[in-house]
Amino acid sequence: MSKYDSIRIEAYKANMELPKLGLVLFTFGNVSAADRELGVFAIKPSGVPYEALSPQNMVIVDFDGNIVEGSFRPSSDTKTHAVLYKHWADIGGIVHTHSTYATAWAQSLRDIPIYGTTHADYTTAPIPCAPPMDDEMIKGNYEYETGFQILNCFQEKELSYQELEMILVGNHAPFTWGKNAHKAVHNSAVLEFLAKTAFLTEQINSSAITLKESIKQKHWERKHGPDSYYGQ
Amino acid sequence: MSKYDSIRIEAYKANMELPKLGLVLFTFGNVSAADRELGVFAIKPSGVPYEALSPQNMVIVDFDGNIVEGSFRPSSDTKTHAVLYKHWADIGGIVHTHSTYATAWAQSLRDIPIYGTTHADYTTAPIPCAPPMDDEMIKGNYEYETGFQILNCFQEKELSYQELEMILVGNHAPFTWGKNAHKAVHNSAVLEFLAKTAFLTEQINSSAITLKESIKQKHWERKHGPDSYYGQ
Amino acid sequence: MSKYDSIRIEAYKANMELPKLGLVLFTFGNVSAADRELGVFAIKPSGVPYEALSPQNMVIVDFDGNIVEGSFRPSSDTKTHAVLYKHWADIGGIVHTHSTYATAWAQSLRDIPIYGTTHADYTTAPIPCAPPMDDEMIKGNYEYETGFQILNCFQEKELSYQELEMILVGNHAPFTWGKNAHKAVHNSAVLEFLAKTAFLTEQINSSAITLKESIKQKHWERKHGPDSYYGQ
Amino acid sequence: MSKYDSIRIEAYKANMELPKLGLVLFTFGNVSAADRELGVFAIKPSGVPYEALSPQNMVIVDFDGNIVEGSFRPSSDTKTHAVLYKHWADIGGIVHTHSTYATAWAQSLRDIPIYGTTHADYTTAPIPCAPPMDDEMIKGNYEYETGFQILNCFQEKELSYQELEMILVGNHAPFTWGKNAHKAVHNSAVLEFLAKTAFLTEQINSSAITLKESIKQKHWERKHGPDSYYGQ
Repeated sequence: MSKYDSIRIEAYKANMELPKLGLVLFTFGNVSAADRELGVFAIKPSGVPYEALSPQNMVIVDFDGNIVEGSFRPSSDTKTHAVLYKHWADIGGIVHTHSTYATAWAQSLRDIPIYGTTHADYTTAPIPCAPPMDDEMIKGNYEYETGFQILNCFQEKELSYQELEMILVGNHAPFTWGKNAHKAVHNSAVLEFLAKTAFLTEQINSSAITLKESIKQKHWERKHGPDSYYGQ
Repeated sequence: MSKYDSIRIEAYKANMELPKLGLVLFTFGNVSAADRELGVFAIKPSGVPYEALSPQNMVIVDFDGNIVEGSFRPSSDTKTHAVLYKHWADIGGIVHTHSTYATAWAQSLRDIPIYGTTHADYTTAPIPCAPPMDDEMIKGNYEYETGFQILNCFQEKELSYQELEMILVGNHAPFTWGKNAHKAVHNSAVLEFLAKTAFLTEQINSSAITLKESIKQKHWERKHGPDSYYGQ
Repeated sequence: MSKYDSIRIEAYKANMELPKLGLVLFTFGNVSAADRELGVFAIKPSGVPYEALSPQNMVIVDFDGNIVEGSFRPSSDTKTHAVLYKHWADIGGIVHTHSTYATAWAQSLRDIPIYGTTHADYTTAPIPCAPPMDDEMIKGNYEYETGFQILNCFQEKELSYQELEMILVGNHAPFTWGKNAHKAVHNSAVLEFLAKTAFLTEQINSSAITLKESIKQKHWERKHGPDSYYGQ
Repeated sequence: MSKYDSIRIEAYKANMELPKLGLVLFTFGNVSAADRELGVFAIKPSGVPYEALSPQNMVIVDFDGNIVEGSFRPSSDTKTHAVLYKHWADIGGIVHTHSTYATAWAQSLRDIPIYGTTHADYTTAPIPCAPPMDDEMIKGNYEYETGFQILNCFQEKELSYQELEMILVGNHAPFTWGKNAHKAVHNSAVLEFLAKTAFLTEQINSSAITLKESIKQKHWERKHGPDSYYGQ
């Protein structure tokens, strides 16, 4: 028994949801789960196939990216996770995937426009695509800087990480987060859906228009507003 | 035993067909089944995952949208179902999904043109896309007004809900219906097929032409006319 | 025991391959298997779901389209099958599906160009798309005329049904055939592959060019020529 | 027991991964595994369905393409494999598939541009598309010449087969390789992913730009450089 068992199990279960949801090929993805009281998170070991994962091989890392416990090397994206946990106090889980359609938008260096109410159920803003980093940041502490690339994008666009739980990292692929690892995985699947339907919307109507204000607000509020009435 | 058991089971079974047919992600869909004699319908509870559904947690609602029996909150789209049941006396089941291709057409604000005989097997008209509502309707009783948006679209286009059992709600996603819940689910899967093949048809031939009158009539009549000869 | 048992079983097994290969939604497809000595074929009953099929409910029909044995109504496309068996003496199986990409090409009223060696493994010609019929033929004996639409298309383009075992019926969907029902199903799956990759080829390169003569001949001959060396 | 058992089993297992990864339809693909000490490779028999494969029916062939042991005829692409093993001393496995998106790029006669970091994790170069052969080579020893078509393409573009383990053969389909058969299969699945996301990237942004030098180098080096830190 370890005080980290709970997040190890949470991270393990959430990682195992990725292949079931069709969001990863081989090891192209990772999930972490944080324990705010202990100031650490559990994350997938680097390059280990999903079928070989277990709660025991999750790696425990602190919010500065230092390994606290674990015999495996953590995901190569660990420092990005650490930066987000350190600066965004309300998140309990983070997911990175190379899911097909979201990755294609990230490679296209375009925000995903808000074309439908499914999108508005999750955010009233376009899904932002953070621009590529300067060469110095890339050559430096790359994964650490990727975290700041995400933070800066949210700051510049005046977005709230509590309200919008997903981003595209330009040239690369998506990151999502949430109150826990399971919710972060949920958001990854939703992002993939939004990416695919937005792609199709533009193919079907090359002058497709985005949602008007009233309908964006309505869908957001029925799920998230003070008088929300979605769910139990 | 309850007098509502029959529609509870019908609604439950039809809801469970949606994930099998690949028409829903998470809880993005709902099916209802009506009992015309009792003046009620059974509908999926809001936000409950498909794997947690049972006949018992279906909610019984009357045609004005009032809850009659059930311990769960009904689908957030319940009032849309109620309006359709109240005004269209011949339907016994309704389905709402966010299926990928039909949703993309709805987001594109375009009717689906009739490019093939599969479409004519179901209707000789394009699949209509109801326009977005006025801001007042959106801010008001939104799901109730969505029902009227559908009714109005059929009235303006002089369509028959007995002959054409599917619609796209602009910006949002499709609704389908039928004599019972199972047939309504069947129509949802067919609509997704029509949406995908129409998309591909336009990609393959940007000046694709729609069916001529004679072939539309032939396919419709061999399935639905007085001398129909499809099926047993 | 019946003298038709053999083709009933062959037709049943071949029909059951269609859903496994992802070529049909619901009942949108049918396979038949012919017995040339008895001058009949076994075909899927109309509108019966695949999970309810058995060798016993296959319907026995002669090459003029008359029912010879069986308690079910045969597929609505039965007369098209009959015409092809009657005029093309070397075929033993026929398949009709509404597979997604092949149907989209049929709806686009375009032949599928020969862009790759996989196509040349099956034919050196484009996959032909038979034009829509005249209104009189449509209003008349429609499914019977569909058979002649196919025969005429092959005659006009001087194609050999022994060498090219697939066609698109314009506005409608594909038909394939072969020495037996299993081979005809194989051809349906190959046609769907060719239809999808040709679509993608044109999307990736809008001025894609078709195969040159030498490579068409090489691939055709290594599978079908006198010195073929593919397979065992 | 035979001295070839080890590569027979390796080739068998790797061939069986292809249908699981969705990379083959019917028999459109083959994998081989080499034993460098014995100077031979084991390869799939031609035209045999995957469900009928066993380690025993793999065919043992030398690097000049001569059959050494086995009762089946080897894959029709055997000479291409032989040429690659003979000239590229460091490879232990080769895969040929007609996977959908990679084949579409090959049919389009286009290199796959490097649009994302997933691509840079495998190579900093575009995935090359070897041009069609001259007519004499096609009419001559075709599969043997296909091997040289691949070798020449790498030579002309000054690419290293140790660093870039995949190619598109124009008009035809992809070949991949690696230190063993399993790694070659891994590369086939990655190539299909790169082909699909590059296609989507260009659809989403018709003026998409390729990765800048710094990010290409960073991703390549974190997986393959002297200070690589991906995996265990």
